[in-house]
Amino acid sequence: MRITDVRLILTSPGANYLTVKVITDDGLYGLGDATLVGRELAVATYLEEYVIPMLIGRDPSAIEDTWQLLGRSAYWRRGPVHTTAQSAIDMALWDIKGKELGAPVYQLLGGRSRRGVLAYSHASGIEIAQAVDAMHEQIAAGYRAVRLQCGVPGLPSTYGVVSDESDQPRAPHEVPYEESWNTAAYLETAPKLFAAARDAVGMDVHLLHDAHHRLTSIEAAALGKSLEPYRLFWLEDPVQADDQTAFRLVRQHTTTPLAVGEVVNHLSECQTLISERLIDYIRATVVHAGGITGLRRIAAFAEPFGVRTGCHGAPDMSPVTLAAALHTGISTHNVGIQEHGRHTSTTDEVFPHAYTFADGYLDPGEAPGLGVDIDEGLAARFEYRRKYLPTTRLVDGTMWNW
Amino acid sequence: MRITDVRLILTSPGANYLTVKVITDDGLYGLGDATLVGRELAVATYLEEYVIPMLIGRDPSAIEDTWQLLGRSAYWRRGPVHTTAQSAIDMALWDIKGKELGAPVYQLLGGRSRRGVLAYSHASGIEIAQAVDAMHEQIAAGYRAVRLQCGVPGLPSTYGVVSDESDQPRAPHEVPYEESWNTAAYLETAPKLFAAARDAVGMDVHLLHDAHHRLTSIEAAALGKSLEPYRLFWLEDPVQADDQTAFRLVRQHTTTPLAVGEVVNHLSECQTLISERLIDYIRATVVHAGGITGLRRIAAFAEPFGVRTGCHGAPDMSPVTLAAALHTGISTHNVGIQEHGRHTSTTDEVFPHAYTFADGYLDPGEAPGLGVDIDEGLAARFEYRRKYLPTTRLVDGTMWNW
Amino acid sequence: MRITDVRLILTSPGANYLTVKVITDDGLYGLGDATLVGRELAVATYLEEYVIPMLIGRDPSAIEDTWQLLGRSAYWRRGPVHTTAQSAIDMALWDIKGKELGAPVYQLLGGRSRRGVLAYSHASGIEIAQAVDAMHEQIAAGYRAVRLQCGVPGLPSTYGVVSDESDQPRAPHEVPYEESWNTAAYLETAPKLFAAARDAVGMDVHLLHDAHHRLTSIEAAALGKSLEPYRLFWLEDPVQADDQTAFRLVRQHTTTPLAVGEVVNHLSECQTLISERLIDYIRATVVHAGGITGLRRIAAFAEPFGVRTGCHGAPDMSPVTLAAALHTGISTHNVGIQEHGRHTSTTDEVFPHAYTFADGYLDPGEAPGLGVDIDEGLAARFEYRRKYLPTTRLVDGTMWNW
Amino acid sequence: MRITDVRLILTSPGANYLTVKVITDDGLYGLGDATLVGRELAVATYLEEYVIPMLIGRDPSAIEDTWQLLGRSAYWRRGPVHTTAQSAIDMALWDIKGKELGAPVYQLLGGRSRRGVLAYSHASGIEIAQAVDAMHEQIAAGYRAVRLQCGVPGLPSTYGVVSDESDQPRAPHEVPYEESWNTAAYLETAPKLFAAARDAVGMDVHLLHDAHHRLTSIEAAALGKSLEPYRLFWLEDPVQADDQTAFRLVRQHTTTPLAVGEVVNHLSECQTLISERLIDYIRATVVHAGGITGLRRIAAFAEPFGVRTGCHGAPDMSPVTLAAALHTGISTHNVGIQEHGRHTSTTDEVFPHAYTFADGYLDPGEAPGLGVDIDEGLAARFEYRRKYLPTTRLVDGTMWNW
Repeated sequence: MRITDVRLILTSPGANYLTVKVITDDGLYGLGDATLVGRELAVATYLEEYVIPMLIGRDPSAIEDTWQLLGRSAYWRRGPVHTTAQSAIDMALWDIKGKELGAPVYQLLGGRSRRGVLAYSHASGIEIAQAVDAMHEQIAAGYRAVRLQCGVPGLPSTYGVVSDESDQPRAPHEVPYEESWNTAAYLETAPKLFAAARDAVGMDVHLLHDAHHRLTSIEAAALGKSLEPYRLFWLEDPVQADDQTAFRLVRQHTTTPLAVGEVVNHLSECQTLISERLIDYIRATVVHAGGITGLRRIAAFAEPFGVRTGCHGAPDMSPVTLAAALHTGISTHNVGIQEHGRHTSTTDEVFPHAYTFADGYLDPGEAPGLGVDIDEGLAARFEYRRKYLPTTRLVDGTMWNW
Repeated sequence: MRITDVRLILTSPGANYLTVKVITDDGLYGLGDATLVGRELAVATYLEEYVIPMLIGRDPSAIEDTWQLLGRSAYWRRGPVHTTAQSAIDMALWDIKGKELGAPVYQLLGGRSRRGVLAYSHASGIEIAQAVDAMHEQIAAGYRAVRLQCGVPGLPSTYGVVSDESDQPRAPHEVPYEESWNTAAYLETAPKLFAAARDAVGMDVHLLHDAHHRLTSIEAAALGKSLEPYRLFWLEDPVQADDQTAFRLVRQHTTTPLAVGEVVNHLSECQTLISERLIDYIRATVVHAGGITGLRRIAAFAEPFGVRTGCHGAPDMSPVTLAAALHTGISTHNVGIQEHGRHTSTTDEVFPHAYTFADGYLDPGEAPGLGVDIDEGLAARFEYRRKYLPTTRLVDGTMWNW
Repeated sequence: MRITDVRLILTSPGANYLTVKVITDDGLYGLGDATLVGRELAVATYLEEYVIPMLIGRDPSAIEDTWQLLGRSAYWRRGPVHTTAQSAIDMALWDIKGKELGAPVYQLLGGRSRRGVLAYSHASGIEIAQAVDAMHEQIAAGYRAVRLQCGVPGLPSTYGVVSDESDQPRAPHEVPYEESWNTAAYLETAPKLFAAARDAVGMDVHLLHDAHHRLTSIEAAALGKSLEPYRLFWLEDPVQADDQTAFRLVRQHTTTPLAVGEVVNHLSECQTLISERLIDYIRATVVHAGGITGLRRIAAFAEPFGVRTGCHGAPDMSPVTLAAALHTGISTHNVGIQEHGRHTSTTDEVFPHAYTFADGYLDPGEAPGLGVDIDEGLAARFEYRRKYLPTTRLVDGTMWNW
Repeated sequence: MRITDVRLILTSPGANYLTVKVITDDGLYGLGDATLVGRELAVATYLEEYVIPMLIGRDPSAIEDTWQLLGRSAYWRRGPVHTTAQSAIDMALWDIKGKELGAPVYQLLGGRSRRGVLAYSHASGIEIAQAVDAMHEQIAAGYRAVRLQCGVPGLPSTYGVVSDESDQPRAPHEVPYEESWNTAAYLETAPKLFAAARDAVGMDVHLLHDAHHRLTSIEAAALGKSLEPYRLFWLEDPVQADDQTAFRLVRQHTTTPLAVGEVVNHLSECQTLISERLIDYIRATVVHAGGITGLRRIAAFAEPFGVRTGCHGAPDMSPVTLAAALHTGISTHNVGIQEHGRHTSTTDEVFPHAYTFADGYLDPGEAPGLGVDIDEGLAARFEYRRKYLPTTRLVDGTMWNW
């Protein structure tokens, strides 16, 4: 079997998605998600001009060799654009291999090793009371784990807090929307949010929280400490992910479990975090950390250090990524939880899929390969339009991590 | 002053170069190099679709703020495509600032702090004797420091070894050329090369060598040890750059000075290398490590640890990068050496420049800004054509670092 | 351009200030602050006899080279007297460069990267209630951040507590005034002060506190822990600055942010503090840590470790230092806050300046160079008179850190 | 007993010396050396204007309290100017105490604990053969330990190499003489020097060498390694002293014993060096490291780590310093060696002293106090004239450590 063509499909049924379709000479094809939110076309050019020409004529069954071709033998490597391209190809090759063997991908990864993949969803509100209400809605929808965010007093908008019901990804602007950030007000508010939430639901539901890279180490340490009474499942992205050693100070001061890694593109970016046990959950994704092959490597490295995965799952990654995460999640031992940012119903129509959610758990289903297809005719009706992620400044005007 | 337009100029006068031209409302413009060899169009799309729209209307004097906008407030950051785009804009803004103030950029960086920037050039040969001859030619051309490479017996081609006299960048193929690699043969050859070279020129010339990421730690340690009698200026890229801690083992065994970093895109990728003094020279470049602002940050971080810069300077980066490196090089204290891969004469015509080479040293010249212009008419005559860098396999067929 | 003369101007319009005026052959001159409170004449001799003779005839644009001449090639270096001299020259050279290029110095440092530099002022009272009243006055004056100190019961006087309204520097004596110190009483009082302050203003104002080098590590750890409920912006000088490793014990026990460094003269004196993330704010100053060149180096070193600047700004440093701090502060990314010990109105008349304070923020203004001048005629009317800083003994008579 | 006056005596019988004379109300006086070569008048002003006024009326027997007054309770402390002043006072108070008790100072420090203090002298030559000849002269003069230096080919002058016979300190210029430095040439020469020396004298004489702060860590490591066959007593100042952690890399690669510290002014500047056993000899001096009280502290700290003293003893420190070093040296257990840069005979006349040299050893003698006096009439005949130490540039013009 040889690869004869690789096509790119760009569609926007609610969010922009770039999909790779790897086509072989025996009629099989595989899908891979190549979406890098806010940078979609750069990945498309990267694939079209540099990656795809190398793939034509290759044996699609040589997944590891192709992964190394793109990830090791490429001189300029790592970083989001490169790795998203590499990840998309890897997913597609696994999809082909599953289809070829007539087996769901998880079977090739060792088979089922759990009943289902624990999922968490999002709840937020500008006011604490609204956030608590939203949490109740998610619990009612079947979730056993909920990420909870609320507005920061004095700020016109806050990451993770949506005011409408669609819970869509935040990238609505033709130029980036500039948020502002006030650490002091946030540190005062967050413990109140979780005090209210625990009052409302007790300890039986897993609660998560995302600080979204905005704190310094000592601020994150103080936050973690102040949240200890509320037994969070995790505190996510307490400090910016670029500097792994920044987690040491956080870790030293609090027993609140820590998670980070949705921006990780390469094992080296979480090697210190994991080997020094500075975190509890690594949030690397199939689409941005090297495909199934890359994510499995990170999980394999993390297991001896007691670190579990907790894959990023915002709805700005396509159903192909979620499917690939679930095949990995159902089969890999040290999987902790899966973020479940629900796609719009239109998105679900564009990407028919075998995976399901029930009673708090996700399941990859039994379809061969990844179990996701794409309705190209429907996809063509949703045109790509550039949408940036926001940027952020501190209250004094200093540019800050969004 | 406001940015009114940013244009991209792609030209190929010997090698592919992507140049950014930032244009302001008072008629000043600045140039930046955005070349990522073998991935040029991906950077172009990244700039065109995502970076440039953010820049229109901004104050070009806010260099730091723009650097942080692109480097910190961008959620997906780091990696070669992103950072090359960021770097190009940074160079162009420094160029504008110098022109606006009527001063060469080095004056804004603290003025001259040395007589000239020590340059090294390349000499190679398939056979050791040819390499030694080539070294003599470089010395005759005025160089006081020469990087020396020779063929590895049994391999059809070897990195860094050119067979014609033009010393052009290696990216000649429509699909990547696949080299092979034999560590055992290489470890046997390298000391013989330097024994012959020292026999020929004594100790008065600086000799450098590039292992180009292909060794394991213990192999690199052994190589460094075996080269000690020949007092190399440096051994470059002894092991692959992705894993900083891999240098610990090399460092422990040899006093041969070590250099690495041409693939570094972010300070975090060399923070351990520098803070643990695992290397002596950091080869980060203006074009791939964040522009002048980024390179100065890395240099400032390195200085207290006794680490000096030795910027990568292959001819597949444009004269704009070389100029920016020299403005940094003449003014920054902990600068060690500058690689000088000479551009073709056509490239020099497309990019008229104020910098000069004489008597072993490079000088940025006294023109305001970076002192490099682009002849757009001439540039348009050299059309871009895709050229890949090679890939590599070990002799058993394992995919390896090129 | 050459340096033709360097003059020293000693004046005392409220406090003693030593100013350096570097004069060039084309009529431009630059100002630098050379004030080392309580040691002014030693710096004057150091400059007059040893530094100035080396500068005559040098190119003032070679700022980095001159900095290295004084800071590296000088055999006897570091320490307050030496570094104050070096710092003054550095400031003056940046002032000249800005004037020569017709730009405020911050433009040469990368341009504006924030709206303004957050300032904090001082409030104190012998009794807690008085201190809280004084805090309200500072807030009414526009400050969003206030350092709060109160008397320690049983001690006749306490560092940082003024009894009149002028808030002048404490150096009133012909021989040093000898204070006494009682750690136990202090540790009992400080939390009460901040409990009262938070009761009075809530969490919206930043509160700071200075322990002024008097505690042992475990005492400082206990203090930091006891202050956590009041969310200080920082606890300053928890232990004496001489021993960087003493901060490890403090850091291990408290998440109260820590600041130190107004006595730092050289990067090596804060290298461990920063690289081990033992502090959150480095208080090194332009005038005592090597000028703008030195402070920028410290800031660049601190940035990757998440440490921000919080420059010392007592009124016993001249307006030239404040201006230089603000040019650095508006342009450098990792600037946290600036101490603003207001000068007397007479001092402001002697040193006309472009910088301004409004709404809690300081701004360097747009005048070329540093934007500060000196009225030499007026300066001559305020004669220098020796004033010592106090000394301290513990209650048992043991000599202690003031 | 009270201090009634402190006088400063500046004289230049071969080199500039600043001497402190502390006078008491019962007629006793003590002498202290306050010489900081090339910065003498700054120390004089520091003493005259700020230190001496604090001492008048104090009890001279309170040596420790006075040391703490100057060294701890002084807010601006450390650094060469401050510490030289503090050191001079400390020496003088010990001199007074000895005279008061009618005992040589060493008796107050615990009495004799060795037969004599092993001394080393200097030998140098532009050519290796001249250096070896000079070594033979020193051995003939009775020395059992000799520091050996030779010229570096291609450099017009080299630190430590004198061409006349007087062996006077190098500070002959009205503006600093600018040397140049070539590491590569030096690393090639040094092992040849010691090969020749060991050929000439065998292993029975201690040979020392001073790299004088000019190497990077890896260069120093290579030097140490290359000198191992010649069994040096020590390699001095392998890298610049400012950064203690720079010694780790040197230490890791060589068993050549290491010495550093003549520029150390405070224990904190050698605390890491000693506590990590990075050196074997600490070269701190009585005059620049806090007097006898300061040096004894450093020695006490070093003893548990197996580090011995090897006090700096250039002839640009006065006989008072040498005497104080010998009283410390004869009584303190972990004393290794004493540098003996012989004073001119005129200097010996200006400072009549009890200490003696014989058969390779120095002895403090039995006179009460330090056993050194000053002939003020004779001293007045040798007028101070400013003499700078040289500065250095690398061959590319980069300013470097002298």
